[in-house]
Amino acid sequence: MQSSNFADGAAYVGGRFVPIQEAAIPVTDWGFTRSDAVYDVVHVFHAGFFRLDDHLDRFHRSMQARRLAPKENRVQIEEILHRCVALTGLRDSYVAMVALRGRPRIAGSRRPADCDNHFIAYALPWVDVISPEVQARGAHLWIAGVPRVPDACFDPTVKNYQWGDLTTGLLEAHDHGFDTAILCDAEGFVTEGPGFNVFIVKDGRVLTPDRGSLHGITRASVLELCLSLGIEAAVAPLPRALLEDADEVFLATTAGGVMPVARVGRRILGNDRPGPLSMQLKDAYWRKHEEGWHRTPVRVLAEERAGSL
Amino acid sequence: MQSSNFADGAAYVGGRFVPIQEAAIPVTDWGFTRSDAVYDVVHVFHAGFFRLDDHLDRFHRSMQARRLAPKENRVQIEEILHRCVALTGLRDSYVAMVALRGRPRIAGSRRPADCDNHFIAYALPWVDVISPEVQARGAHLWIAGVPRVPDACFDPTVKNYQWGDLTTGLLEAHDHGFDTAILCDAEGFVTEGPGFNVFIVKDGRVLTPDRGSLHGITRASVLELCLSLGIEAAVAPLPRALLEDADEVFLATTAGGVMPVARVGRRILGNDRPGPLSMQLKDAYWRKHEEGWHRTPVRVLAEERAGSL
Repeated sequence: MQSSNFADGAAYVGGRFVPIQEAAIPVTDWGFTRSDAVYDVVHVFHAGFFRLDDHLDRFHRSMQARRLAPKENRVQIEEILHRCVALTGLRDSYVAMVALRGRPRIAGSRRPADCDNHFIAYALPWVDVISPEVQARGAHLWIAGVPRVPDACFDPTVKNYQWGDLTTGLLEAHDHGFDTAILCDAEGFVTEGPGFNVFIVKDGRVLTPDRGSLHGITRASVLELCLSLGIEAAVAPLPRALLEDADEVFLATTAGGVMPVARVGRRILGNDRPGPLSMQLKDAYWRKHEEGWHRTPVRVLAEERAGSL
Repeated sequence: MQSSNFADGAAYVGGRFVPIQEAAIPVTDWGFTRSDAVYDVVHVFHAGFFRLDDHLDRFHRSMQARRLAPKENRVQIEEILHRCVALTGLRDSYVAMVALRGRPRIAGSRRPADCDNHFIAYALPWVDVISPEVQARGAHLWIAGVPRVPDACFDPTVKNYQWGDLTTGLLEAHDHGFDTAILCDAEGFVTEGPGFNVFIVKDGRVLTPDRGSLHGITRASVLELCLSLGIEAAVAPLPRALLEDADEVFLATTAGGVMPVARVGRRILGNDRPGPLSMQLKDAYWRKHEEGWHRTPVRVLAEERAGSL
């Protein structure tokens, strides 16, 4: 029984399911005023979650790393994600789960431990990080001047909303007429971009950075695909010069999958189109989705099950 | 005509004034999901703003640095802050102003430039960053292991909510039984703590870090006080060893003023009490408040003015 109210998205917030338009957090929540929150995003393809357990595992690791403990346990969180998607009636969806520090139980406390942590989730219609048109021609990737925040300051494997450096890179990219940006760390090693991991192809070998970046689930999927397709792949330090000298470059993210790149800075890759190995991996990624790879079917609502008896 | 609804705080959000309990932002606002927001906090002491113009100047610099342009202009923002305080009826208040990226006008856009930026503000009852009891005995300051995010990654003079490293430092401090934390950068220079600047006193000279920290308005006030009191003061590189070897240490913040420190890590300063120069500056800071220093009286509501005629 999905209401048309939920067609634009369904959220779980404050222990209730509401249309996405009504989903809000207090302006004084430390999840906002200190960006003291972790999140994860899983996608639903043709009514099935992709690698749901892997996303839940990572989300729980992120919460533990920041000592966030909302009252919902893992089973309940999984149930909430299913229900958010089911309420929307969407077959393809972007599903977010977020743990926030909340506000102190003791008025005036400045101690994170005094806060009531809470959990929110929401399902939205699927949107690509990079538009399908840009993906088709190959993205133009700007190498940002702003350095990525060092791992020692904030662990990039803990999925978080502190996008300041990534946003700066994105603004630089748009100023120069590029689609998106990739950031290097202060030592000149390639890290990640706003919402995606990066891969390069050089002499038939696939490489992705070992630092400064999220351990992406799509990144893991690409490495798995390489193994199954007999393509040599490695997680390794990736100096900026290697990115600029790559045969092919592609990006990997939940909200887009494998996204080929045609230009890196002023350099045009190959024939200014997505490279062959990038396309092979992109095609395999979506074909295996069709075949039910790592799929968890979205559970229909109890009301619907009852109705279909 | 302040309603009792506003006694716990008054907010301006979505162009309307509401009780703080009702002030919320969408869970999909980039101000939250990318921590793409800047803010400032000014305090009201005995029905007068302290250095309101300085806070508004800094807030506008922060907005410009992040290309945030909400529809309210400076005059309107000032009027909104006055009204928030007036609605609460508070004589002492903590007043926040925030500019958020908002959400894209174009569905699916990932471009900051496509977003409708917006402005929120709120006035709350005054709360000290460090409780008055702790201030009286002198705060215990932990030197955090986590390094401060480098200035090159995110300009710390742009007041922002990306508190990840500061929160990590705070958690460390509490784990070790300390009140709060100070962070050093990766090169070993002292920066700032969660919500405050730091000063040291050595051989009668006052020093505060030249890097990794906000250009605090209270910091500026302390430097001004030093000048007027004939105390030598400087903004300079501050190696960690100098902090550990200080005669006195104190913290400076809008939400607390000048806050003396009694312990730095395992080291006890002086006689484990606030130092004499710290107390001199703290006393002068509040005495000058009483005298109307940099004061802008809070404008009463039009309804009240009408009523008093």
